[in-house]
Amino acid sequence: MAKPVHIINGPNLNLLGTREPEIYGTTTLADIEALCEARLKTHGLDMGFFQSNDEGEIVALIQAARQQASGVVINAAAYSHTSVAILDALQTLTAPIMEVHLSNIYARESFRHHSHISQIATGVICGLGAQGYEMAIDALAARLKD
Amino acid sequence: MAKPVHIINGPNLNLLGTREPEIYGTTTLADIEALCEARLKTHGLDMGFFQSNDEGEIVALIQAARQQASGVVINAAAYSHTSVAILDALQTLTAPIMEVHLSNIYARESFRHHSHISQIATGVICGLGAQGYEMAIDALAARLKD
Amino acid sequence: MAKPVHIINGPNLNLLGTREPEIYGTTTLADIEALCEARLKTHGLDMGFFQSNDEGEIVALIQAARQQASGVVINAAAYSHTSVAILDALQTLTAPIMEVHLSNIYARESFRHHSHISQIATGVICGLGAQGYEMAIDALAARLKD
Amino acid sequence: MAKPVHIINGPNLNLLGTREPEIYGTTTLADIEALCEARLKTHGLDMGFFQSNDEGEIVALIQAARQQASGVVINAAAYSHTSVAILDALQTLTAPIMEVHLSNIYARESFRHHSHISQIATGVICGLGAQGYEMAIDALAARLKD
Amino acid sequence: MAKPVHIINGPNLNLLGTREPEIYGTTTLADIEALCEARLKTHGLDMGFFQSNDEGEIVALIQAARQQASGVVINAAAYSHTSVAILDALQTLTAPIMEVHLSNIYARESFRHHSHISQIATGVICGLGAQGYEMAIDALAARLKD
Amino acid sequence: MAKPVHIINGPNLNLLGTREPEIYGTTTLADIEALCEARLKTHGLDMGFFQSNDEGEIVALIQAARQQASGVVINAAAYSHTSVAILDALQTLTAPIMEVHLSNIYARESFRHHSHISQIATGVICGLGAQGYEMAIDALAARLKD
Amino acid sequence: MAKPVHIINGPNLNLLGTREPEIYGTTTLADIEALCEARLKTHGLDMGFFQSNDEGEIVALIQAARQQASGVVINAAAYSHTSVAILDALQTLTAPIMEVHLSNIYARESFRHHSHISQIATGVICGLGAQGYEMAIDALAARLKD
Amino acid sequence: MAKPVHIINGPNLNLLGTREPEIYGTTTLADIEALCEARLKTHGLDMGFFQSNDEGEIVALIQAARQQASGVVINAAAYSHTSVAILDALQTLTAPIMEVHLSNIYARESFRHHSHISQIATGVICGLGAQGYEMAIDALAARLKD
Amino acid sequence: MAKPVHIINGPNLNLLGTREPEIYGTTTLADIEALCEARLKTHGLDMGFFQSNDEGEIVALIQAARQQASGVVINAAAYSHTSVAILDALQTLTAPIMEVHLSNIYARESFRHHSHISQIATGVICGLGAQGYEMAIDALAARLKD
Amino acid sequence: MAKPVHIINGPNLNLLGTREPEIYGTTTLADIEALCEARLKTHGLDMGFFQSNDEGEIVALIQAARQQASGVVINAAAYSHTSVAILDALQTLTAPIMEVHLSNIYARESFRHHSHISQIATGVICGLGAQGYEMAIDALAARLKD
Amino acid sequence: MAKPVHIINGPNLNLLGTREPEIYGTTTLADIEALCEARLKTHGLDMGFFQSNDEGEIVALIQAARQQASGVVINAAAYSHTSVAILDALQTLTAPIMEVHLSNIYARESFRHHSHISQIATGVICGLGAQGYEMAIDALAARLKD
Amino acid sequence: MAKPVHIINGPNLNLLGTREPEIYGTTTLADIEALCEARLKTHGLDMGFFQSNDEGEIVALIQAARQQASGVVINAAAYSHTSVAILDALQTLTAPIMEVHLSNIYARESFRHHSHISQIATGVICGLGAQGYEMAIDALAARLKD
Repeated sequence: MAKPVHIINGPNLNLLGTREPEIYGTTTLADIEALCEARLKTHGLDMGFFQSNDEGEIVALIQAARQQASGVVINAAAYSHTSVAILDALQTLTAPIMEVHLSNIYARESFRHHSHISQIATGVICGLGAQGYEMAIDALAARLKD
Repeated sequence: MAKPVHIINGPNLNLLGTREPEIYGTTTLADIEALCEARLKTHGLDMGFFQSNDEGEIVALIQAARQQASGVVINAAAYSHTSVAILDALQTLTAPIMEVHLSNIYARESFRHHSHISQIATGVICGLGAQGYEMAIDALAARLKD
Repeated sequence: MAKPVHIINGPNLNLLGTREPEIYGTTTLADIEALCEARLKTHGLDMGFFQSNDEGEIVALIQAARQQASGVVINAAAYSHTSVAILDALQTLTAPIMEVHLSNIYARESFRHHSHISQIATGVICGLGAQGYEMAIDALAARLKD
Repeated sequence: MAKPVHIINGPNLNLLGTREPEIYGTTTLADIEALCEARLKTHGLDMGFFQSNDEGEIVALIQAARQQASGVVINAAAYSHTSVAILDALQTLTAPIMEVHLSNIYARESFRHHSHISQIATGVICGLGAQGYEMAIDALAARLKD
Repeated sequence: MAKPVHIINGPNLNLLGTREPEIYGTTTLADIEALCEARLKTHGLDMGFFQSNDEGEIVALIQAARQQASGVVINAAAYSHTSVAILDALQTLTAPIMEVHLSNIYARESFRHHSHISQIATGVICGLGAQGYEMAIDALAARLKD
Repeated sequence: MAKPVHIINGPNLNLLGTREPEIYGTTTLADIEALCEARLKTHGLDMGFFQSNDEGEIVALIQAARQQASGVVINAAAYSHTSVAILDALQTLTAPIMEVHLSNIYARESFRHHSHISQIATGVICGLGAQGYEMAIDALAARLKD
Repeated sequence: MAKPVHIINGPNLNLLGTREPEIYGTTTLADIEALCEARLKTHGLDMGFFQSNDEGEIVALIQAARQQASGVVINAAAYSHTSVAILDALQTLTAPIMEVHLSNIYARESFRHHSHISQIATGVICGLGAQGYEMAIDALAARLKD
Repeated sequence: MAKPVHIINGPNLNLLGTREPEIYGTTTLADIEALCEARLKTHGLDMGFFQSNDEGEIVALIQAARQQASGVVINAAAYSHTSVAILDALQTLTAPIMEVHLSNIYARESFRHHSHISQIATGVICGLGAQGYEMAIDALAARLKD
Repeated sequence: MAKPVHIINGPNLNLLGTREPEIYGTTTLADIEALCEARLKTHGLDMGFFQSNDEGEIVALIQAARQQASGVVINAAAYSHTSVAILDALQTLTAPIMEVHLSNIYARESFRHHSHISQIATGVICGLGAQGYEMAIDALAARLKD
Repeated sequence: MAKPVHIINGPNLNLLGTREPEIYGTTTLADIEALCEARLKTHGLDMGFFQSNDEGEIVALIQAARQQASGVVINAAAYSHTSVAILDALQTLTAPIMEVHLSNIYARESFRHHSHISQIATGVICGLGAQGYEMAIDALAARLKD
Repeated sequence: MAKPVHIINGPNLNLLGTREPEIYGTTTLADIEALCEARLKTHGLDMGFFQSNDEGEIVALIQAARQQASGVVINAAAYSHTSVAILDALQTLTAPIMEVHLSNIYARESFRHHSHISQIATGVICGLGAQGYEMAIDALAARLKD
Repeated sequence: MAKPVHIINGPNLNLLGTREPEIYGTTTLADIEALCEARLKTHGLDMGFFQSNDEGEIVALIQAARQQASGVVINAAAYSHTSVAILDALQTLTAPIMEVHLSNIYARESFRHHSHISQIATGVICGLGAQGYEMAIDALAARLKD
């Protein structure tokens, strides 16, 4: 049976639904977790769902996914723009990686336009809110079938 | 009843399936058209599907969508990186805009990392091949329901 | 008798009056055409008035002006910022060239601050809406008298 | 009755007609003053006409215009490219501001391509010599009527 | 009664008084804590005082301040220059934020001249050593009174 | 007895209270003068208070402070960003220098993020309005006691 | 028998011989066509000769060459510097590509120093006028023999 | 007797031998630990050997080395390129610092060419795999004898 | 008889001999004036000697030199690096211009490496203290003889 | 009778045929010499053929060509990208200069995209291997006939 | 038996021990030669030891090493930062290359931070003085054994 | 008795008087040698006069000057802009160094505006032709007297 999909969320996403709702909407991270679990179930896949404010912990979460996960959905939030350590951890994965951003990072401040992760991700989805996670799961599932 | 969704494809996408298959895969544009039509049908939406190698024609296609379309999915290919005219045309739309790229533009040459369109799109999806179009349609449909 | 003045308008200007009225106002391109014709008449000059969304067509319009026009007023819109082909076409003219922008391009996004055309124009007028065309005509007429 | 229009000229413009005539022509600043006064009269407007080589004095002239002028035409010459103080003074005005340059600054050395003033001006006119002042006056008059 | 003011200190500030005294002086972090507590008392305010070498912990400290603090004084030290995650956490606060640096960062290496935090802070105070904290507290207190 | 503290204000600060109140508030320069005098009195110090729109005059004011002042508080406004002459004058002082900005210059346009003065100032305080002057005085007084 | 060689000319080259003769000489495009045909004949090769002012048409011409041509000589003129769409079309060819410029683009304005096409061309020849086309044909013919 | 040498390893080095072996080889971190211990023994020195994925923990490890170590060998991996906090911690050491990279960072992506640590290290060794650690130990030992 | 040579000195040079003597030495401006007068006398030339802290006054001094001086020696100090107005004034001169700097500006901070004046000066002499003025006079005298 | 054509080859070209054959092919420099001599003979021209690894010697070779050669073909290899001295020497020639590169420098590392020589060459030919020399000779011969 | 190791030293290294001893120490190049010979002997390897101030000679020394050396240790000194010719020569070697710098180039002026050689070297060692040569020899010897 | 002054001339200066006389004039290097010898004699100093087209030889000439010369006048021509090796050689001198350029390098192409040598020279003189050498000698002589 397929290993679960790990969904890794970066700093400040634990505040979702309260933080800057005009940018990020009112959906909470728990809502997203529920949405993701439901979507993965439609593909017959289990879920690991994680959030951390800490770059080192996110590196560790990615390292753990090397053995335990069949694919990774990652929204590294602010660390997308600054963390080479997370890029390096992701480069050690052979499973497909989907990068998700709730907001459209290309429509915000210029320092958010570059993501270290994008160069190593299979796909990048941004600006579509919680639905972006569902789409990333669909894309992962399609690749896991091949 | 809702207006159709217009799907607009930029230069060289007519060659899809033959051009650099190691980057773009073997799916043809006709295959994508069929996929899109089927997906839109699941949402009860009609489709307009267009391709042009010409910046000016793409501007005209976008202008036409102002009256005729409830939403636009655009893969402007090379013009994403160079066309302010297409950006300006898109800025005249009030309907939601989904930007799609078959390949992961952030993993290619640096001159492909910037898309003028991204700053005005609702969502950006890239690297997921033909499935990216389906996901863009899902995202549009969700927004048209709201 | 003097040849007519050609007034060449670039992409998306056909939407004038409907597109982003907070930037471009409610005057339509037909309104501008009428204003220009009237102003040229006060100088005893005929008019050719053109709009195209297509870079190649604008190049052709400029080439046509080489034989047929005593001067050119050009608002190349988005192509001002991206087209070397239009610059090259303008460089083949010996008649005076007036560059017009309806909005103040220097008060907008930084990618609109540079116009390839400005380096070759006799004069540049921007931010003054339709009146800018009238002023460009006055400036042309003054130079045609000399 | 409307307050006068203030016309403010920057450094070295007092030499006009003698300085680099191949760039600036033979018209003197007194000629421009006369032209401006005549033009303003056609609009029923009075004139204040000033020249200074001093950045601080120009700041003071602009401050004075806050109470005394219905609009400002400014050719800040070299200070256009270097003075944030003049920009700040202009930002305190509510009256419309017209920026004029005798020569086409975009066709000269690259350090003359950027004007701090342009971002705050209503309109920018350059390359049209003394006629540019007349046109700026027309543009101001039109806006004062509205 | 007003919530306490949280004072958050970044990496290596625990070494204060021993680390590079020619730049940072001989005052220890405990000295600063005492100074701050005394100053807050003069304004009738309580204090939370924190130090961490860890970016993720600082994010968590800021998140905690959302509910618990009436204002934040932050000296993020090295993370000022590199952390978008801390910026994002600060952007979720509605309480006023004071940024403090013991040394004058603008007089040091160029990579210390930019602070991500400054764009979101109410005020920035640097180069004034421990006194800068006292001043930041005064500034916070003044704003809390309004 | 200690020499007075000189407080030097740059261009357009004479308009304070009327100019862009959403950025600078409604406090006038006379208000700030009164605040400063009162604050200096608490430290037993006299005051010289100056404002000029002129770079050269500000250079002269700083030169005068070399003999006459025990310390300088300077808000050079726009000249902070453009004047090497003021930097050079300040470098001739041995007395401590406090740089003040009413608004948070790091939260405004990017050309306001760099101040020539910061590299030579003892301390920099910005974004705290008139209170910033009081704090600069406190910081000066503390250093004069040492 | 070998397929013909396609010779594709970009914008404003239809004006050759009249446009800026001090840069481009007095040879017309018809002269070049005749020269090319003669040279190809010496190699036993047929010719397709095309000119367009339109980026989209040039993309189409290159796409057509995929099936119909054994090699391509391209002088994309202004589009060399701005068109990623033409680069993408050329990347779909397996036949050899020769880039020609009549003038020495490296001795002109800096925005003409970079050609998108050069990175994909087999060879680049510039500054040698019409003879450059003949040389490009020789180079193509040599590679077609191998 | 001399204090031990601390050897500090950064993020993802715990995966050594499995992660991208074409870049980093098949030696594990345990292998390196054994090599280092043996080498230090030849110099009569003890070892502290550490690895962390966490920037803050690495800062703490460096701070601990201030009292406990006679020298530091550091391979900060990805944090070399992004961490000012680690640089600041290292600047508090008086013991010699040797920077090691297993791969040649100058032969990889350009964002790996700059290391914040290099400016403060005594020596930099890169591209020599595990042997680089041994050489760093030799270099430290030589300096500790002096 | 030849007109005098004007020697124009910029901001803060009135402090010479007291300001940063480790950079500028102990010679005063009066000393330099005496040296220059003596040197000019050896060439049979009269002197005008000026100093101003004010950019506008320096512009006026240069304008005056147009009629009154046979040549200009200028040490614009800080304004060398920031003033386009002074450059423009100098461009109106037909007399030869010698640029002098007491210190070697190329060995100081990078913002002092560029002088607007250098592009228009006949000769540039820097780093040679007061002797640089004497040499500039010699160079002027030689050119006035030709 | 016409002077010979000098063919000057830069550093490492003596290794041709052995060095990186996947970039430069297996033709040796002696092969190229023979090809060039034969080609020049068809134009009735003699040859001087030179190679040096030394920038100074290449400068001397170019200086010698001033008197002795009717034209120069130069492949300065690595010095193309770094040598202003060679550019200066070439600028002293009145004979035509043809720049040749065996490989397509625009398809290689970015530091090879710029050649100092190109700005002064009559023509530039690159990517065509040894045939490029023959073509350069043809182009020279054509110009020597005129 | 193995070929010797060639040790190639660049410009000004002949002055070692006298030139800037605060940066380079008092060890002479003869001392280094002796150290290297001794170290190579411990590995059973012979030595070629060279120094040249001339870029072309260094190119020739590297070319000679292609046949004669089993490995190269190079300290190209100033040419590391400026010579593409030396890079190209090194790229023709199949033997391993060790780059050595006596001082820590990353702690000096920014123009010394980039070495063309680093991208092609197997290993880079800097800041460790003469010991760096010994370590480079050890690293070479280890690779020659494999 | 004082050691001689060495005057070192860089590439292409042997062509002086014939090369680009509109920039460099008609004076030959022999003329300059004679002028220098005469001038040095007035100061009671001997001369060494050198020219080389070779960077390595110039390095050697500078090294020789360490023992043999009391001061150096250097016109490194093109190598001024590209040679770190010459800079390094000059840094080993304790004698004063005068940099001379015949033409005004700041009024020429931008790649000539930066000289590596300027940062280490005592004085820089440019644009004054052969007289610049005489002035450099005077400046040297003055410093040798001190």
